[in-house]
Amino acid sequence: MLHKYNINASQKPLSARLTESGRFDLFSAKTSGVLLDFSRTSLDQATLGKLLVLAEASGLDQARQKLFCGGNINATEDRPALHMALRDDSLLSVIDAESKEQVIATRERMFEFAGAFAAGHLPDRPGKPVKHIVHIGIGGSYLGPRLLIEALGNDSSVQVHFLSSVDAHLRNDLLARLNPAETAVIVVTKSFTTGETLLHARRVKQWMEQAIGSTEASYRLFAVSGNQQAVDAFGVSPANSLYLPDWVGGRYSLWSAVSLAAAAVMGVERFREFLRGAAEMDRHFQQAEPRANLPVLAALTSIWHRNVCGYPAQVVIPYDYRLRSLASYLQQLVMESNGKSVDREGRPVEHATSPVLFGEPGTDAQHSLFQMFHQGTDIVPLTFVAAIRPDHDDGEAHAALLANMLAQATALATGTAEDVTDPHRQMPGERPSEIILLDELTPFNLGQLLALYEHKVFVESVVWDINPFDQFGVELGKVVASAIQPALEDSSQGVPAGYGLDAILDYIRSK
Amino acid sequence: MLHKYNINASQKPLSARLTESGRFDLFSAKTSGVLLDFSRTSLDQATLGKLLVLAEASGLDQARQKLFCGGNINATEDRPALHMALRDDSLLSVIDAESKEQVIATRERMFEFAGAFAAGHLPDRPGKPVKHIVHIGIGGSYLGPRLLIEALGNDSSVQVHFLSSVDAHLRNDLLARLNPAETAVIVVTKSFTTGETLLHARRVKQWMEQAIGSTEASYRLFAVSGNQQAVDAFGVSPANSLYLPDWVGGRYSLWSAVSLAAAAVMGVERFREFLRGAAEMDRHFQQAEPRANLPVLAALTSIWHRNVCGYPAQVVIPYDYRLRSLASYLQQLVMESNGKSVDREGRPVEHATSPVLFGEPGTDAQHSLFQMFHQGTDIVPLTFVAAIRPDHDDGEAHAALLANMLAQATALATGTAEDVTDPHRQMPGERPSEIILLDELTPFNLGQLLALYEHKVFVESVVWDINPFDQFGVELGKVVASAIQPALEDSSQGVPAGYGLDAILDYIRSK
Repeated sequence: MLHKYNINASQKPLSARLTESGRFDLFSAKTSGVLLDFSRTSLDQATLGKLLVLAEASGLDQARQKLFCGGNINATEDRPALHMALRDDSLLSVIDAESKEQVIATRERMFEFAGAFAAGHLPDRPGKPVKHIVHIGIGGSYLGPRLLIEALGNDSSVQVHFLSSVDAHLRNDLLARLNPAETAVIVVTKSFTTGETLLHARRVKQWMEQAIGSTEASYRLFAVSGNQQAVDAFGVSPANSLYLPDWVGGRYSLWSAVSLAAAAVMGVERFREFLRGAAEMDRHFQQAEPRANLPVLAALTSIWHRNVCGYPAQVVIPYDYRLRSLASYLQQLVMESNGKSVDREGRPVEHATSPVLFGEPGTDAQHSLFQMFHQGTDIVPLTFVAAIRPDHDDGEAHAALLANMLAQATALATGTAEDVTDPHRQMPGERPSEIILLDELTPFNLGQLLALYEHKVFVESVVWDINPFDQFGVELGKVVASAIQPALEDSSQGVPAGYGLDAILDYIRSK
Repeated sequence: MLHKYNINASQKPLSARLTESGRFDLFSAKTSGVLLDFSRTSLDQATLGKLLVLAEASGLDQARQKLFCGGNINATEDRPALHMALRDDSLLSVIDAESKEQVIATRERMFEFAGAFAAGHLPDRPGKPVKHIVHIGIGGSYLGPRLLIEALGNDSSVQVHFLSSVDAHLRNDLLARLNPAETAVIVVTKSFTTGETLLHARRVKQWMEQAIGSTEASYRLFAVSGNQQAVDAFGVSPANSLYLPDWVGGRYSLWSAVSLAAAAVMGVERFREFLRGAAEMDRHFQQAEPRANLPVLAALTSIWHRNVCGYPAQVVIPYDYRLRSLASYLQQLVMESNGKSVDREGRPVEHATSPVLFGEPGTDAQHSLFQMFHQGTDIVPLTFVAAIRPDHDDGEAHAALLANMLAQATALATGTAEDVTDPHRQMPGERPSEIILLDELTPFNLGQLLALYEHKVFVESVVWDINPFDQFGVELGKVVASAIQPALEDSSQGVPAGYGLDAILDYIRSK
């Protein structure tokens, strides 16, 4: 698909483009509260035009329509991908009436739970205190709520603690510090078969039951899942269980009851604002013409860097400590969605798909990553993210923060002046970056930002002709782990011969 | 240098190498407490042999000798790089007697401070309580202590809080929670000119002085720096000031008084063990033959992946939540050290240098990054890190953790079996990884691990013929930021025309 469009890297130096008249107006786009500035890239009008043609020819309009109409867009798993319906009730019309009712009732119940936690007690039991929430979940059942709480949950009196990896060190340290009689536990797993989550959940349930008895413990145990049968079997009461529809993928699930703990600490009204912001971006994505459409432009810039310029990595640097986990969140969204090698028909793709993506907060990253970005042998395109207005009154600190961000974007593009003659001090410049500016880090704007990224990933998947909603690549590891674990628990057990693990297993057992 | 050795990617499938007889013995190496297993790579004996010749021909022996003898190895900054002398007094013989005395006295004073903090009070003032330490520092003055505290500091009663990025949101949240009369503040900056650190330090000093008066505040303010004059001017008393020698680079400084807060929470004796572990790795690096030398073999594996296989990224996945910041720590060590494009003589290098490096803890990463590693279009070599013996008694959880790690390494190499016919479920395998196993996550073993990485980076720099100890690439951004900041604080100020920032500045000011 890509090679047919004869899109080639441009020749004009990026440093010369910076000061072109009208550059910012032509290579930026905005919606209420969010700006995307991609003027510090080597895109020009001709290449951007070709990329827009490519998007259209890839069937973007039809795919987007299929997505929002609840079509079978996740064909390999034979289901729609309708996470947008969690933030806009009008989209629920495409599902059956019973499911629709269940979604709305679940959200209201989630908000009741969140309101009670925020008020410091169990739902429907004002005499039972809650000072801590233990949120057990991993991947999509963890990264979103963590990001939300770090970004918007600083004023809360209830404290949320996460248990994700199966590692018991953190769990032991955590439980030693908590009083079960003041703690609520939320077990979050769509399938209710996630190994890490269930092991933690069993241990935490036992810890609580031993301390306060099984009846009291049952009041304090909550579940968010799409597998009600398994939730019942585990012993969470139906009254404490929140439903997750199967048309919401894990990495798109922070709009659902998965974010119960986040809604508790940021406040229900602010969580509603968060949903409204995302719904606003959904409308923008559906209605704005491609040339002014943020998800489309962000995707095409990414495709430009990945497929035309050939850059294998992308970096996200939030100049806002509240967004310090943004890159970790986006890693799942980007790499799990588009880390695929076969197209929708199962044929090998002939172009690169998902880049690796990573990032650290600025200005921290200036003291770790940026030396390589400025003077390394590879070019790594960056996306800077910041809020224009801070939520504090230290104007000098915020000016320093934004000045550092703009300075990095500038220095990466311009490099050193010609009078720098020591080659060790020379910087070549010509390194592209984008800037995303939020007016302010409000729930609404954060909802927009995350929905912008969701749709950006979707547009990329359409151009790359891959299904962004499945993740079969994670299955084999689970199967192999199950085959190996007995040998690590019991030295009389072996491992399958083809794995080539005998020698390292002997080494482990010798210790 | 590299192309002369005719080193080519091998043809035999990795999945077939796994089960070769003797593979583990030939492609692993160990020292007391640390194993490096690089058997799941496409290296064979012939190519490893050529890489060893390359290392020798690059002058590794001479460079290593120059490093340990205090030679002018950081030639562009005209100084030695002697961080190893912080962990082995015998290496201090190469510096002058006065400096040597100062290093030893500083360490003893640091341990006195740490001991007092651990006991819950100020040094020399048992009546003045310390329950919290605010550690202000960024980059090399932050990443190491954070890693140490997360890895080894869980039993402490004194709590350490970090302020790094210039962002004031975190600082405001933190100070609102702290009582100045129970807090000690450590300002860590080698130059004592780091903008972020000094801004935080000024604000925190003021916060403390307003609450408890300047005399009491002066007891609670500490500095770690190489610039005594600036420390005095800032108002830290000489008695509370610890010295940082100029031959210790920031990213190699966690062996120094930079880790004062870490020594307090992990305990002085355990910090000494940490230094001893690193010194043990120094000796191993100097004495072990190349074929059994962990830093040499780790570097050659990395060079194999970077320069022969052409992989632009490397990933570190610690299967241990205590090491969750390991990749963030290594980013600075690897990318800041070797993200260079000119050789020691200032000529452009003709080969790729530092890869991008990132990582998240396992098993979390299996739910975010691994889909792309298994089924993406690019190959990304991984390094897994784990401890064989846990520091808890949940054997099932630890077995699950190690089983998952070994399973990922295996599945990445083997891919799916031939009977998987659905292309969406097929995984190609042939994706390399290394495993580093510590017997246990002790201070000694962690010291070994971090020194192993330091020397690995050094060996790479020798083969690539670059200086790993300077970082001129970070300078331009600071200059540009200074030129921009006035315009962000005062709308009557402008920015230099060549930066192309006028339009985005207008946008920012309109909000």
